[in-house]
Amino acid sequence: MTEQSSTAEPVAFTADDFATRQQRAAQAAHDAGLAGLLLTPGPDLLYMTGYAPVAITERITMLVIPADGEPAMIVPKLERPDAENAPGASTFQLLDWTDGSDPYEATAKLLDSAGRYAVSDSAWAMHLLGLQGRLASSYVSMTTALPMLRAIKDADEVGRLAAAGAAADQTYEEILKVRFAGRSEADVGADLAELLRQFGHSQVDFTVVGSGPNGANPHHEIGDRIIQDGDMVVLDFGGLKHGYGSDTTRTVHVGEPTEEEREVHDVVRRAQQAGFEAVRPGIECQEIDRVSRTVITEAGYGDYFIHRTGHGIGLTTHEPPYMVEGETHLLQPGMCFSIEPGIYLPGRFGVRIEDIVTVTPSGGRRLNQTPHEMAIVS
Amino acid sequence: MTEQSSTAEPVAFTADDFATRQQRAAQAAHDAGLAGLLLTPGPDLLYMTGYAPVAITERITMLVIPADGEPAMIVPKLERPDAENAPGASTFQLLDWTDGSDPYEATAKLLDSAGRYAVSDSAWAMHLLGLQGRLASSYVSMTTALPMLRAIKDADEVGRLAAAGAAADQTYEEILKVRFAGRSEADVGADLAELLRQFGHSQVDFTVVGSGPNGANPHHEIGDRIIQDGDMVVLDFGGLKHGYGSDTTRTVHVGEPTEEEREVHDVVRRAQQAGFEAVRPGIECQEIDRVSRTVITEAGYGDYFIHRTGHGIGLTTHEPPYMVEGETHLLQPGMCFSIEPGIYLPGRFGVRIEDIVTVTPSGGRRLNQTPHEMAIVS
Repeated sequence: MTEQSSTAEPVAFTADDFATRQQRAAQAAHDAGLAGLLLTPGPDLLYMTGYAPVAITERITMLVIPADGEPAMIVPKLERPDAENAPGASTFQLLDWTDGSDPYEATAKLLDSAGRYAVSDSAWAMHLLGLQGRLASSYVSMTTALPMLRAIKDADEVGRLAAAGAAADQTYEEILKVRFAGRSEADVGADLAELLRQFGHSQVDFTVVGSGPNGANPHHEIGDRIIQDGDMVVLDFGGLKHGYGSDTTRTVHVGEPTEEEREVHDVVRRAQQAGFEAVRPGIECQEIDRVSRTVITEAGYGDYFIHRTGHGIGLTTHEPPYMVEGETHLLQPGMCFSIEPGIYLPGRFGVRIEDIVTVTPSGGRRLNQTPHEMAIVS
Repeated sequence: MTEQSSTAEPVAFTADDFATRQQRAAQAAHDAGLAGLLLTPGPDLLYMTGYAPVAITERITMLVIPADGEPAMIVPKLERPDAENAPGASTFQLLDWTDGSDPYEATAKLLDSAGRYAVSDSAWAMHLLGLQGRLASSYVSMTTALPMLRAIKDADEVGRLAAAGAAADQTYEEILKVRFAGRSEADVGADLAELLRQFGHSQVDFTVVGSGPNGANPHHEIGDRIIQDGDMVVLDFGGLKHGYGSDTTRTVHVGEPTEEEREVHDVVRRAQQAGFEAVRPGIECQEIDRVSRTVITEAGYGDYFIHRTGHGIGLTTHEPPYMVEGETHLLQPGMCFSIEPGIYLPGRFGVRIEDIVTVTPSGGRRLNQTPHEMAIVS
C-alpha cells in the first residue's frame, strides 16, 4: 500500500510534538515583537495542544503562549476534566474559572498589560472585547501577525493530507459510476458524503453538486434541482480524515457536451495546470493566482473567474496561505493549499477544477491524482 | 394533536417578520446610545434576516443595522447569489466585496466612524480587529450591550421550542425502553441521536451519556465505557427542530439505586422544582440560580454544584438570559431558558435534571413534560 491509499490511523501526536510547536510559536512571537499568542478553541488550539472542547460556547477557553515564559490555559471549571485529558495537557499550566465569576479578570492575570498579543482569527469578539476592557494590552489577528504559524506542514501532516486526498480521489472515481440524470443534486450529494465516510472520513464538511445554472454559483451547495441530460455538474467535496482536510473539485458532464462547454472546461483545466506548474519554493503566493488567472483572462473569461485561486488547508479547510492578489508571502516546502480556478457563466453553467498541492523543494506535488479531463456521466 | 406534539413544519418567517425585528433592534440601539448593531453569521444574523451562509469562514459577512437609517449587508461576492435568496433579502441593501480587495475598508464605509456599535458575540476577532484598525468607532459585545435582543420569544418561537421539547420528551420515553447494562455510552448516545431525528430534529447537537463516574464530569459527552448494573446515568441531549433548540436532562439508574443515590437524586429534583416554582415576571435571573442552589447547599452538596443553573435557548442552545449569580436582568414573559441544577461527586456519579421553561404572565411553563423521578432502566 502506498502512503496515499493507507487507511490505518496514523500515530497520534505526542506531548513532545505539542511542546515543540509551542516553542516554535513562542519564538515566532518573540521575533515579531509580540508578548505572546492567545489561542482559542479551533484549529490553533488543536494544533498546539490536541485539545478541542466538546463545543465552542460563550464560556471562554484560552491558551496563552508567552514569547518568554510558560504556557497556561484557562478553562471553565466544568470543562477542567476534559482539558486535563488533552493529549498536550502536560505542556501547559491549567487554570479554571467558575460560572458567576468574571472570566476576563481571571484571563487578564495571564497577560502582560503592556504587551501586544496575536489572537486566533476565530476567537469570539465578545472575549476580545472583554480583555480589551480590562487591559492596556493590544491585539492583532493571527493571520495578520503570524499567518504562517500552521502553514508549513511536517511529513506526518502531509501524510494525513495525502490520505485525505486519496480518499477524495476514491470518492470521485466511485461517483462517476452513479446515475446523475433524473436524480436530484441532493441525492448525488448524499452519495458523495457516504463515499467520503466509506473511504475513511470522520467528518464531511461540504458536498457541492452544482448542476446546470446552479454550477454558476460557486457557493451553491446542493438543492432539489433534478439533474438533466446535457448538464455540466460541478462536484466539490471534502471533510476530515485523521483530523486533516480534503477538498477537491471536478466538473463532469451528463451526456455529450457542446463545443462551448468543452472550450470552457479546457480553459479551466489549462489554468489549473499552469498554476500547478508555477509552484516552487520562493514564489509569492499571489503569483499562483496571477498565473492561473492569466490563462482565463487571455481566453476572454476573466470577468467570470470571481474568486481567489486557492487557500491553505490543514486542520481546517480554509487557512493561510491564500493564493490571492496581494499575498506576497513566499511559498516554502511543506505548504499545502488548493489550486482551484473556475469560470462561472451566470444562468448557464460553471466549471471548476481543484487539487490540493504541497510544495516540495523541487516544485509542486498533487495530493489529488484523478484525471482533469471532463468525465462524461450518465 | 396538541401544539407540542405537532411535527408539521411551522409557517416560515416572512420579510415582514424580519423587518419588524430589525426595527425593534434599531430602536433598542437608539435607546442604548449606540450607533447601531453589527451582526455576523450565526444566530443574530439568522434572527434578523433568515440568512445563514453555507459555512462560516474567514471571509467577512456583516449586517449593519444603524440606530437611524437603512440596514445594509456586505457579503463576499461569490456568496452574493445565496444572500440574494435569503428570506429577508428585501429588508436590507446588499453590497459585496471581491477576493483580493480589502473587506474591512468596504465594511467600514457602512459605519459611522464616531459611533459605538454592538457586535455579535461570536463575530471573529480578526474581523473586529480589522474594523478597529480602520475606524475610530468603538465596539461592545451584544451580550454586554443588548443581551435581551433575542431573549423574548414570540408565540411562534415558543411554539417551535415547545415542539423541540416535545420531541426530546418522546426521545426520553423511548430511551427508557432500550438496554443500558452491557452496552457502551456511545451505543446509547447513538440511540438518542437516532430518536431525536426520528422525532423531527434536523440536527443533533449533543448526546451526553455519563455513566457511573463519567456522570460526575458535567461536560463528559459519550465514551467507550460499558454501562454497568448499578450505574447512575446522566442523559442530556438536544439539537434543532424547525430551527429552534431542545435541551433536556434526566438521570436514570441501572437496577436498584442505593439510599445515597436516591437522596442525591431527590435533592436535585427538589432544587429543579424550587427553581421552576420561583419563575415569574419581574424576578431577577440570578434569583432562579439562588433558589435552586440553596436547596442543594442546605442538603450539604453545595460544593458539588459547579455550574450555573441555566441558560437561555432559541436559535442556539446557549444564549441570554443566563440563570447565574450576578445576572440582574428581570424575567419577562416569553423568555425561554433551562433550569438544570446538578450534583457531581468526583469519581463516583453525577445527577442533573433539566427542563426548558418559558415565562408566562402568571409564572413558568415547562416545555419538557416527562417525570423527574429516577427511572430504573435495565
